[in-house]
Amino acid sequence: MDLPARQRSLREHNLAVVMRLVARNAPLSRAAIAAQSGLTRATVSAIVDELIAGGLVTEVSPPPPNGAGRPATGVVLSGATPAGLGMEINVDYLAVCVLDLAGNVRHRAHLTADQRGRTPSQTWSGLGALARAAHKAAVAQGLSIAGATVALPGLVSEQTVRIAPNLGWTETPIPAHIDGVPLSGGNEANLAALGELHALPGSEPSSFVYVSGEIGIGAGLVVNGQLFTGTQGWAGELGHVTVDPAGPDCTCGSRGCLEQYAGEDAIRSLSGLPSADLPRAAAEGSPPVLAALAQAGTALGVALSSAVNLLDLPCVVLGSHLAPLAPWLSPAIEHELQQRVLTSRWSTLEVRPSALGADAAIIGAARTVTSAIITSPAPYLASR
Amino acid sequence: MDLPARQRSLREHNLAVVMRLVARNAPLSRAAIAAQSGLTRATVSAIVDELIAGGLVTEVSPPPPNGAGRPATGVVLSGATPAGLGMEINVDYLAVCVLDLAGNVRHRAHLTADQRGRTPSQTWSGLGALARAAHKAAVAQGLSIAGATVALPGLVSEQTVRIAPNLGWTETPIPAHIDGVPLSGGNEANLAALGELHALPGSEPSSFVYVSGEIGIGAGLVVNGQLFTGTQGWAGELGHVTVDPAGPDCTCGSRGCLEQYAGEDAIRSLSGLPSADLPRAAAEGSPPVLAALAQAGTALGVALSSAVNLLDLPCVVLGSHLAPLAPWLSPAIEHELQQRVLTSRWSTLEVRPSALGADAAIIGAARTVTSAIITSPAPYLASR
Repeated sequence: MDLPARQRSLREHNLAVVMRLVARNAPLSRAAIAAQSGLTRATVSAIVDELIAGGLVTEVSPPPPNGAGRPATGVVLSGATPAGLGMEINVDYLAVCVLDLAGNVRHRAHLTADQRGRTPSQTWSGLGALARAAHKAAVAQGLSIAGATVALPGLVSEQTVRIAPNLGWTETPIPAHIDGVPLSGGNEANLAALGELHALPGSEPSSFVYVSGEIGIGAGLVVNGQLFTGTQGWAGELGHVTVDPAGPDCTCGSRGCLEQYAGEDAIRSLSGLPSADLPRAAAEGSPPVLAALAQAGTALGVALSSAVNLLDLPCVVLGSHLAPLAPWLSPAIEHELQQRVLTSRWSTLEVRPSALGADAAIIGAARTVTSAIITSPAPYLASR
Repeated sequence: MDLPARQRSLREHNLAVVMRLVARNAPLSRAAIAAQSGLTRATVSAIVDELIAGGLVTEVSPPPPNGAGRPATGVVLSGATPAGLGMEINVDYLAVCVLDLAGNVRHRAHLTADQRGRTPSQTWSGLGALARAAHKAAVAQGLSIAGATVALPGLVSEQTVRIAPNLGWTETPIPAHIDGVPLSGGNEANLAALGELHALPGSEPSSFVYVSGEIGIGAGLVVNGQLFTGTQGWAGELGHVTVDPAGPDCTCGSRGCLEQYAGEDAIRSLSGLPSADLPRAAAEGSPPVLAALAQAGTALGVALSSAVNLLDLPCVVLGSHLAPLAPWLSPAIEHELQQRVLTSRWSTLEVRPSALGADAAIIGAARTVTSAIITSPAPYLASR
């Protein structure tokens, strides 16, 4: 379409308005979309037809409510094309998923493999193999991959991993494409927090610290439904908050960082067990495991108290390997929060496990692709 | 004026647009306001006339630039009525100022007096006397006080001081008026950070941690030119960030809080001197004073490193009693930031003294009154 600039921008705006309404409240009849958007029926119908032609939405006939009346046709997000590819490189695994516009995971793969002995190009090549398999699985289901995002355990800016201390990466470029799909990168904890945000029921504005516990520890900060990323996108480095200024040396060059008390390696060296075995051993009452988890919980509580004192957030979400350990970590965390947070008497501080567990980062990464299409469908439609 | 709702809201919007332009770029000719706002000359002239009649702006004739051409008349914020009353209750002093719409301090008073032996009503009565004197001084200069805000060293919500540990206040109501003027309350460090933000040159978006060092220590967090207050307005409790989990007991009920290393009482008990005497003694090389400041600087550096790791802010502003001590505190703070902030290799972390010093909180408090009028002039004009 060749419209003057002002009319084109109006059309893009209206496309996005309708996409957002359908994403939040589907199924919606065309009449309901018109009523909720303030657009005319004719405008809504033209937009819906365009979105259907572009494969972004589809129309369904919902079952009649309690048998009464003629059922209206409802517009819903398309379960078919397009989809987002979400990926993760972490210290001891690679993972990938395909998410459709309606938020369903259509493919998922997880490969346990320590990346610390590998060069970055070996790691990218391993991830490329997972991406190819995911791409094939998506095409077989009638999906087309619109873009890819990779979650990384470190500082990311300008398509470069500035540092990922536990991978041993510094100034490592992120390829522009993976398996022919445009690729961008982001911090693993931030992307996992985004995944968790979208998994929450209801449309209430939500605020929480999402704690990602792997070999390293990171955090994603969600304030009133928005990711808080600081001035350079590097907020949330909870793993390097000081727990004890005279504590053990950290891989980052500092001392007494939270990671040295509550990271996977720290818990393993105290408990003698890999993290996968910890929940069962803790449930069986193993003394070294309970002692290791008590130390980790106390250190998490000290660092999270500093975070809550600074950020005033009402909820802590324990993610990845910490999620199944929540029953043993939460009491110590809550004890420290109660003692150390100045506002604890006036506010309820909730500590809960992640709803998505180990998949939060890949789902959040894929979400950045599908959310971009939902928020601004015009560029996607123009590219087809 | 009795306009239909839509037209009234358009008028209020246009009033605010013109006020903001004048506040930022004065002096501006009516023609320049029209050009920069996109409003017609006739609309701008009607609005400017209304703002002049309400005492919010005035017209001046600037000197001709280099003798060339006929000088245009410029619209500037009114140096006359109205004005804001900014006040502060702190542990060992009371303070007040009157700020006009152009940002000039027109009256200022500071009363050294320890409030810890007093009841809240004795303190409010002492502040009331300062407010009365300020009100008189304002009227004598042709100003009218449009509102008052009081800065308090604690948690404030719903017109109540929830807790101010160093004052010994809990659940203390803030009066609705002081000397007949509507009164609201806010956290001292947040208001000081607002004062500091407005004192910065230029219109660049700015991000910093403002550290308020009195008997207690608080912080105001400014992210891209906006105060970050968290979900309940309680963000920035830097004084209760843990420096050492096994450290000395704090008035808040926790242990090892920053306040116990870098608060005025902590520095005094190590150095043997009140804070007013510290800069001279430090300049003279007094060993106990230098040792006390080194300890305070290191503790500030540990807590600020946690803040920067979590919030990703590029600048630390040392306020109130810490400002004149910056030459002795900054080296230890910078050493800790360099060692403990994960991103320190990729970003410049500036540590600098406050531009406003001890007056930041009262100026920021008065600013909330004048900013409300500048941002939304219609309610003020309607009330006259």
